[in-house]
Parts: sequence; structure tokens; C-alpha cells
Amino acid sequence: MLNIGLLGAGRIGITHARAVTALPDARITAVFDPVDAAAAAAQALTGARRASVEEIMADKDIAAVIVATPTDLHATQVEEAARAGKAIFCEKPIDLSSARAEACLAVVREHNARLMLGFNRRFDPSFARLKAEVEAGAVGKVELVQITSRDPAPPPVDYIKRSGGLFRDMMIHDFDMARFLLGEEVTEVFATGAALVDAAIGAAGDVDTATATLKTASGRIAVITNSRRATYGYDQRLEVHGEKGMIQAGNETATTLTRANASGFTSDPLLDFFMQRYAEAYRLELAAFCRLAAGEDIAVPTGEDGLAALRLADAAVKSLASGQSVRL
Amino acid sequence: MLNIGLLGAGRIGITHARAVTALPDARITAVFDPVDAAAAAAQALTGARRASVEEIMADKDIAAVIVATPTDLHATQVEEAARAGKAIFCEKPIDLSSARAEACLAVVREHNARLMLGFNRRFDPSFARLKAEVEAGAVGKVELVQITSRDPAPPPVDYIKRSGGLFRDMMIHDFDMARFLLGEEVTEVFATGAALVDAAIGAAGDVDTATATLKTASGRIAVITNSRRATYGYDQRLEVHGEKGMIQAGNETATTLTRANASGFTSDPLLDFFMQRYAEAYRLELAAFCRLAAGEDIAVPTGEDGLAALRLADAAVKSLASGQSVRL
Amino acid sequence: MLNIGLLGAGRIGITHARAVTALPDARITAVFDPVDAAAAAAQALTGARRASVEEIMADKDIAAVIVATPTDLHATQVEEAARAGKAIFCEKPIDLSSARAEACLAVVREHNARLMLGFNRRFDPSFARLKAEVEAGAVGKVELVQITSRDPAPPPVDYIKRSGGLFRDMMIHDFDMARFLLGEEVTEVFATGAALVDAAIGAAGDVDTATATLKTASGRIAVITNSRRATYGYDQRLEVHGEKGMIQAGNETATTLTRANASGFTSDPLLDFFMQRYAEAYRLELAAFCRLAAGEDIAVPTGEDGLAALRLADAAVKSLASGQSVRL
Amino acid sequence: MLNIGLLGAGRIGITHARAVTALPDARITAVFDPVDAAAAAAQALTGARRASVEEIMADKDIAAVIVATPTDLHATQVEEAARAGKAIFCEKPIDLSSARAEACLAVVREHNARLMLGFNRRFDPSFARLKAEVEAGAVGKVELVQITSRDPAPPPVDYIKRSGGLFRDMMIHDFDMARFLLGEEVTEVFATGAALVDAAIGAAGDVDTATATLKTASGRIAVITNSRRATYGYDQRLEVHGEKGMIQAGNETATTLTRANASGFTSDPLLDFFMQRYAEAYRLELAAFCRLAAGEDIAVPTGEDGLAALRLADAAVKSLASGQSVRL
Repeated sequence: MLNIGLLGAGRIGITHARAVTALPDARITAVFDPVDAAAAAAQALTGARRASVEEIMADKDIAAVIVATPTDLHATQVEEAARAGKAIFCEKPIDLSSARAEACLAVVREHNARLMLGFNRRFDPSFARLKAEVEAGAVGKVELVQITSRDPAPPPVDYIKRSGGLFRDMMIHDFDMARFLLGEEVTEVFATGAALVDAAIGAAGDVDTATATLKTASGRIAVITNSRRATYGYDQRLEVHGEKGMIQAGNETATTLTRANASGFTSDPLLDFFMQRYAEAYRLELAAFCRLAAGEDIAVPTGEDGLAALRLADAAVKSLASGQSVRL
Repeated sequence: MLNIGLLGAGRIGITHARAVTALPDARITAVFDPVDAAAAAAQALTGARRASVEEIMADKDIAAVIVATPTDLHATQVEEAARAGKAIFCEKPIDLSSARAEACLAVVREHNARLMLGFNRRFDPSFARLKAEVEAGAVGKVELVQITSRDPAPPPVDYIKRSGGLFRDMMIHDFDMARFLLGEEVTEVFATGAALVDAAIGAAGDVDTATATLKTASGRIAVITNSRRATYGYDQRLEVHGEKGMIQAGNETATTLTRANASGFTSDPLLDFFMQRYAEAYRLELAAFCRLAAGEDIAVPTGEDGLAALRLADAAVKSLASGQSVRL
Repeated sequence: MLNIGLLGAGRIGITHARAVTALPDARITAVFDPVDAAAAAAQALTGARRASVEEIMADKDIAAVIVATPTDLHATQVEEAARAGKAIFCEKPIDLSSARAEACLAVVREHNARLMLGFNRRFDPSFARLKAEVEAGAVGKVELVQITSRDPAPPPVDYIKRSGGLFRDMMIHDFDMARFLLGEEVTEVFATGAALVDAAIGAAGDVDTATATLKTASGRIAVITNSRRATYGYDQRLEVHGEKGMIQAGNETATTLTRANASGFTSDPLLDFFMQRYAEAYRLELAAFCRLAAGEDIAVPTGEDGLAALRLADAAVKSLASGQSVRL
Repeated sequence: MLNIGLLGAGRIGITHARAVTALPDARITAVFDPVDAAAAAAQALTGARRASVEEIMADKDIAAVIVATPTDLHATQVEEAARAGKAIFCEKPIDLSSARAEACLAVVREHNARLMLGFNRRFDPSFARLKAEVEAGAVGKVELVQITSRDPAPPPVDYIKRSGGLFRDMMIHDFDMARFLLGEEVTEVFATGAALVDAAIGAAGDVDTATATLKTASGRIAVITNSRRATYGYDQRLEVHGEKGMIQAGNETATTLTRANASGFTSDPLLDFFMQRYAEAYRLELAAFCRLAAGEDIAVPTGEDGLAALRLADAAVKSLASGQSVRL
């Protein structure tokens, strides 16, 4: 039985805790959250005791931790867990500063800690299958990756001020997916964008509609488009082109219904947002982490993946500001 | 150059004439229609002279006729054309009475006339391709055929009184398609229906919503559904199941557009009716007839096909009245 | 907390038990199954004790039972549970004999027992939504229902000999769905079929490819097609036509992927069979039962629904044998 | 009757000539092509006489010309036709040099000539309808345009050397479409690409896989991806996002068939290339030109549209070479 300490019992922490409860060989035994109600909710769900971070780190029976606290605590807690010899699941990003993230990863490496980053989309059944088919040669050598990612509605401007902006809090998932699918490291980034959805986002120095073009050394290209607005639901599409053909992952809807009348044929809008759309991905992600923590040798998104995506986000921010492409 | 006489210059006659004008090796040289305006329209389109049926039959330069007159004239004109040694394209049905149609076909056979029946749907590119793939073994041995056929709106009750009713004027196309796809003769027919769209249709002794189940000697089944109403356009679908799999032909729309908003994803309603939906089929049908008339040995719907479909319609009418299945 | 006794811990019993474990307010506290391994599996899953049927019926703490034993035990166990004052979830059918089922329902009514029949498809999210939209008037007055239902592969002939055959073990789900969607009782049934998939099924007196046409007093029609073979997965489609339009429920696949190459565009085959396809329906079905058992007044498939579907199956068997339609 | 002179009777010239033959009020009366066989083919199709460019320009009965000669003749012939007072349909581009194109347009303006550029895609029924719906406000204010355009296979390298390369011979259509749909002029262009399909294309200094990002003054963005390879046919997709939603135009196939077996569901590959895919667009384009030439006041792609697209292509070439975005 794998005993896990949960650091942070907000929405995403609870999602991970629920995923753990469905697994036969793992359980949450301790919960840290300074907010009483949050901790209590996680305790009710898991039967775990409430504990401080220090207590969790010191508990020899706890072999793994889930870091789902606010971003500015991630790096320190990852370091503490690494030093305590625990397997670590860390919500992305490790830190908004790539220098800080680098320093954290040095500690992780020093202690040979098993660290998995929370790039949940890699575990989506359709996306994972797409990756597997690409790996199996379905499209031959990859040439072009197209990613469309649109949130239903913009977050509050306050959130954006803390989050690092669109490239660091939203497109970072697409940067990871682009790296995952390109099969080569990105060497050049161009990004542009505008505040078309909410002028306050522009006033805060960020964009809400954006695109990035990534290129690898051998010339492979990824094109990402993002928007903070999609009236028709959470739009999440991948498309990979190669020498032999194309493979694409489409959107998901609540039902398979089509209605027909004089106005045409109408199917459902898309699932509303990431908690619905990636519900299965969250479950599979935690299952993978528990297998990793239990010592299995499986491929998961690493700290280095997290850092690489963050560097792409940094480059995109720089490109947006300069109007020029940025070499890595 | 194949010279053709056009008998009947109504909507369908004009459609056939226009198809001929697009062919390099055929032309309409004479037009018969008692209605001056109809004849004039056909003449303007084709440059043909106006003529009586007798003149057309007697004209040695005319090698083929298109019979697109009212149904009650078909059998007699087909016989006249057969006696005159002309190749004949006859709009379905040969006659509303299968006895009369049989007598007509006897004359056709006696004179070795080339007769093609106007089952236009066999020439639809998707349906023809479906048939070719079924023939090529795509689904293995055919087991079940499903046909959905719905008109956008009911015809005037007056038309229904003359047309022989739903089974003889509408489902007859589906009977032909079922025979075409089953690959075996039908031995048993069950049909039922109701007047749900227009009570006046019921009062006239007909139905506007109907289904028929056909069965062959070896047990293959075809299920047809018809309605005189489809608010979303002219619904025309085929589906063939066999031991190895399934193949289906879908509907057609004017554009490939999809619109998305909070109400969902909406594509076009279907093409409105047969003149739009089967425009290409009408062209290919006449091209096939001209090749047949020019002496080529190609497979076309025959007079016997027309008679067989009519007998299925008769059986369906009988089944509807009796509530029992009818053996052929 | 609702305490439930599980009668029968085979595949479907385990499925129901697992659904209960996910519910906060219900639990399986006793398991009956004469097979040790089956009982043990259910106990491991639920933590319940093993018990005899008599002990379960006598246990005052058990307010509800799930009857998932072999069909020939259903009626007796339902009666025992009704007499014991328990809420009852019974897998369909109550009995292969409608006379026996009627007698059972008389006992249920006598004791005012809450009985829910296991027509799981009514709880499928897409089908349930379709029903809700039809109820809300999306297609206006219903005119025609089309149901396609195909299993991936035929069951062993031994199963068919015990199951009552295609109409009673397979199409019965579609009969229930047709009644559910027609909104009127069926007054006339025509059915036909053949053994095209497996000659041994024919030798056993059953069919493996079949169709039924149902008609209501007002003339509404339902057409059902069934096959014991679908190489492309478990085919489950509904389509409801009405005066204002159409609504249809499509199939489900494991991923949203489309692959494109010179052979065309290829998407996944369908989910393999009912345990995958209706996984969510099974969960929602048991959740509904637990709400019913807890005293909520919600609409569920009743014993009368089970009997009505069985009578349609009986009529279909009779129609198949006679080649004639059967009035109810 | 509009008399038209055809300059150039290659593949595209013949396509335009055929489109004219289908129009009741226009005809080709003179054909210029130095290649005897080409001229003869056009004459056989149209019944026109063969003539020199000078004779066509001097012929007072010829009110319009179609310029479908090699690109390096376009500008001169457009100027001659403008001076001769003829309406002009000119295949794109006016010239590979935007300076030369500008000079040509000055002559056109000086003589108030009616000039239409051959951006055929604007006349595609789906694309034209998409534009009309966007204009009608279907998506509200436009925010993001995504264009996917992939040829089935690369042209010979010799062609690429003469054509101006991918941005000037292929993406130029997408630049025009982006301008058409953005509803604002582009102020900034970033482009990148690589030779992934054919190394010889790279050796010739061009790319075969490319993307461009366009931005307008108000921040609207268009993202274009191009490839000279698509094993699944000619891929042509548009997608327009706005504040109220999205509208997209999909691909076209030869049939509506779907085949299902254990490998999944397979539909047709795409139509092979532009002559098939845009067949209807070519017809509608020439019909529009004939209406323009006849004096109607209709919106068509102008010489200025051609120049604007060429300038975007120039900017893309510059961006590709510099790795930087280019301001216009």
C-alpha cells in the first residue's frame, strides 16, 4: 500500500485525492492545507489525518507526496520532499521563474528523487493513443503539429497577474504537448497575440488571443493557437502531420446526439472546461504517479519537461514583446 | 451523333434534355409536348424541332426516345418506340398496373428493343460506388439492407390520387434500390404505415409514413422507412450490412460549413429535394442511356427491374391493407 | 445509509456492486452466490458478509436487494423480497414466461413493493438526454422511431437455448426503448429474421438477424433491426422522427482520433460490447435505484415495463413463426 | 452576348473556356496560344477562331479578355487590354514582382479598366457562404483565422524555380483568403518553413512545409499552414473565430460513403487537387467575371487584392530569410 501525503486541498488537490481513492494500492494518509474547510473536505473524502508539511515530510510511512499548493510554494516543497526521499507529484509549473525551477531540479537530481510533473493532457486517452500511434509510425516522420486550445472564458484579471500570463499558465500545456509530439527539441519560438477578449487583460500587460510557432533543428514545426474565449465550450484539438499522413484528436461532448430541423443538424457544445474534459486524464495521471512511486519504471512528464515548457513560455513572452523570433 | 426524340417536356423531361446537351455525341432533335410553353422551353434549350409522337416514331434519323410523358402514356409510347426500333429511356413506372407493364415488356422483348428504366438513384455517385464496393466484397455476403428515404414535404393530395400512392410513387425507388443491393430476389413483403403528416392523405386512402420489410429466399432482409415529411431536407440514406462489415451512404448538404456557439455545432440542412440531390445522378443516367442507345453493352435498370419494383409496391399495398405479409 | 443485499455475484452482479461502492449513501452488506469464487469477489469488493437468500430476506437492516441471479430465479426472489418489504432491483427479464412474470407482479403490487427493472439503456446519458429532448418537444409529435442494435458476435448456442432467443434476450432492450420513445403502447407487431451468422443458431430454432415493426393505435411506428454480428463493434443507434424534426443518438468510440492517408480517413471501431458501452448507464441505473429505495419518487423502468417488453418479444416470436403480424 | 478573347489555352485557360460555354450570355470568340495543339483544343471546345494577341486587342467586338498565359506575360497583356478598353480577367499573380504589378495597376486605373484577379477560392460555395455568414455577424467581431492548405504532392523543382516559391505560388491563395476573412489589412507578417518533403526544394532555396502568422492593426490574427504533401488528398480548411463563436469550412470527398469493419470506420480520401476541389469555384468565378464585364456592379477580387497578397508573400519570404517578423 502506497501512503501519500497531499499538500494543498484546493480544487485540483481534491481531484487528485479522489483519483487516489479509486486505486486499490494507494491512499492519502495525511493532508496539509492551511484552510480548515479545504483540509476537512479532503479528510472526509480520504479518511486521512490533517498534518503540517513538516510532519508529512518527517513521516517515514509516507512514501509519496502530491504538491498541489499555490505555485510559489512548489519549488520549496519539491525540494523538501526530495530531501525526505519521497516520490513527488508536482502540479505545473515548478516555479514561474525558470532559474528557480532549475535550482529545484538540481536538488531533485542530487537526491535521485522521482519527480513527475502534472501535465495531465499527456494522459488523456485520445491524446495518449495519438502519441502511441505517432510513435508506432502512423504518420512516418513528423513534419507539422497543429494545436488548438481555447478556454471557454477568461479568468479574472487578478489571476492573470499572479499566473505569469497566457503563455505561462495556459499555453504551457500546449508547449509541453508540442514537445511531446514533435519528438525533437524546439530551437526557435515566435509568438504574437492581442487582448481582444478583455481590455483589462491588455491593461494588465497580457494577451488573451495568441499564437506561437515553434521550430526544431531539423525543421519540424508546431503551430499553437490559444484564446481565452470559446462560446461553444473548451476547445482542445491536436493534429500531427507526417510524411505518411495525418492523425488528429477531436473534441469531446456530453452526448452523441444530433438534432435536425429546418435550421440544420446540431450537436452538443463541447464539455465546459478542463475538470470535465480531462476528468479521465486526471485519474490516469495519478494512477501513473502511484505506479512510479511504487517503483515501476514508466515514462511520465519529468521536472525537465516542466522546465523545458517553461523556457518555451519565457521565449514566447520575449518574442511577443520584441516582435521577433527567439532562439533557444 | 445520336439523335433523340423527347416525349414530354415537363420538369423531368427538361432535366433529361439538359443532360443530353452536355454530351458531345448526342442531341435532342425533336420534342413532343402538347403544352406549347413546355415544348418551346425544350426547343430553346436544345434547338430541336417540335413534332408529334407519330413523326418522332417515323423519323429514321431518330435512334432513341426519352419517354417523360404522364405515366398513363408510358406503356403505349414504349411499345410504339419498340416497334419503331428505337432505344428507349422510360421514366418509371412503365404503368401503374403491373399487368399493363408486363404486356408492354412483352412487346419490348418481341422487338429486341433496348429499354432503360429511369431509376436515377442507381447513378448517384455515392450509391453507385456503394454498390460497386458491395459487389467487390467489401461487406462479404449481404445480410441486411437499411434504407431511409424521406421527402421534405407531402405532395398535393390530387397528385397522390393519380400517382398510385406512397408505395408506388415514392417507395418504388427504395424497392428498386433494395433489389439492387440485396443481390437476390425478394420473396416476401410486409408493409405498414399511417397518415400522420396530412389527414387528407389518409382520407384519400393512402399513408404518408410507412415502412416495408423485404426478405429473400436465403433470408436476406431489407428494411425501408419512408415519410412525406422531413423538416431538415431530403433524407436519403443507405446502409448495407454483411458478414465482413458495413457500408453506408450519407446525406448531402450545400456546404461543408459547421458553426459553433453556445447552442452547439450546426451544419447545413440537407439538399431540398430530388432535383438538387440527384442532379449528378440525372446527368450520369442520361449519359448511360446514350451509351446504351449507341450500342454499348452496359448494365442499366431494365424494364424487368421496373416491373419487379412495381410488384413489390403492389405487394406492399396488399400487405398494408391486410396487415399480413405477402409472398411473391 | 442504504443497506443492500446482492443476490448473484456474476459479471452483472459485480457491475452493480461496483456501482454501489461509488455511492456515498449506499452499500452492499450481504452477498448471496452459491459459487464460492463469485461470492468472494463480491465480498472483496464491498466488504459485505456472505449470506443465504433467506438470511438476506430476514435481515431487517437490509432495505433493498439487487436480483442478479439466473433468470429462472428472478420471479421467486422478487416475490420473496416484496413480501419482506424490500425495494427491489431486478435484472431483466422477470421471467421468460409472461404468465409467470404477471403472477410475480401481482405479488409485488399486493405488497406495494418498489420494483425497478434493469433496462440499463434508459440511463445511458445520450439516450436519456434524447428522451428528455423528445419529451420537451424537440421533434414535436413522434411519428417514427428507428433502432439499430447489433452485437459484435453471437453468444454460444447453449446460451441461446436458455435465453429465450434473440427476441427475448436481445431485442427486448429495443422493445423497451421503442415503448420508451414512442410515448404510446404498441398494438401491433411484425417480426421476421433468419439465421445468417451461425447455422447452429438456426438449427436451435432461433434467428441471428432480425427486424421488428411496431405500431401504436394512433399509427406511430418503430422499426428495430438486430444482428448477432457487427465486425466493427457494438452498434447502438436511436433515431426519433416527429413533425418538427429528428433527433438521433450515435455510437461511441474509445478515442476521438481520425487518421488520414491514401486510404482515406479512419476513426475507431465502436466500443466492444455492453459492459464498455453502457458502463456509465450501469452506474447511473444503480444510483437511480438507490434513490428509489431511499424513498425518492423518481421515474424508473417498472415491472410493468418489463412485462410489456416481454409481451412484445412473445408477439415477435409468434410473428416470426407465422409470417403474420400479431395484434396485442 | 459578351464576346471574350482567350489568351492562353493551357489547363487553366481551357477550364475558364469551358466555364464560359455553360453561360447563356457569353462566348469565347477568339483564342490566342502559340502552341497549336492548345489553341486547337480551345477552338474545338468553343468554336472560336485563332488569333494573335494584337488581333484580339484590336477586335471591337471583343469586350473582355481572359489572361491565362504564363505569369511573365500577365502584366503586359493586362496593360494592353486596359488600353484597348476591355474587361480583364487575369490569373494570379499579375507579376512575380510587386513593383511591376503596381505599374500595371497604374495603367489599369488610368484607363478605368475593369480588372478581376483569379482568386478562385473566394467563389467556392462553402467558402463564399462562410464569408457571407461572417459578414452577417455569425461570429461577431473576427479575432482569429486559421487556414490549413496542403497540396497532395510537390510540383517539379523546375516549376518552383519559376513560380516564385511556396509563398508566392501556393500560400498566396491563403494570404488572399486571410485578408478576405480578417476584414482588416495585415500590418505584420511572420513566416517560417523548411524543406521536409523534398530536399531538392530546399536546394533550390525554397521550403515545402511552412507557416505564416499575420496580424492586423487591431490585433486580429491569421495563422496559415502549408505543405506540399498530403497523402490523403488536397486539404483545404478554413476556420474563423470571433467573439460570438466559430465557423469552419471542411474538406470535400467524392462520395458520402463510410465503411466499417474491425479496423474502424473509413471515409474517402479528399478530392485530389484544385481542378477537382474547386471545379464549381472556377465555374462561378467566370460567371462573376462575365457579369462584371457586362457592366454589373459586383464585388470581385481586384488588382489591388492581387497586389496586397503579393506583398504579403514578399514579406513572408523576407521573414523566412531573416527569422524576424516583417512590418508592412
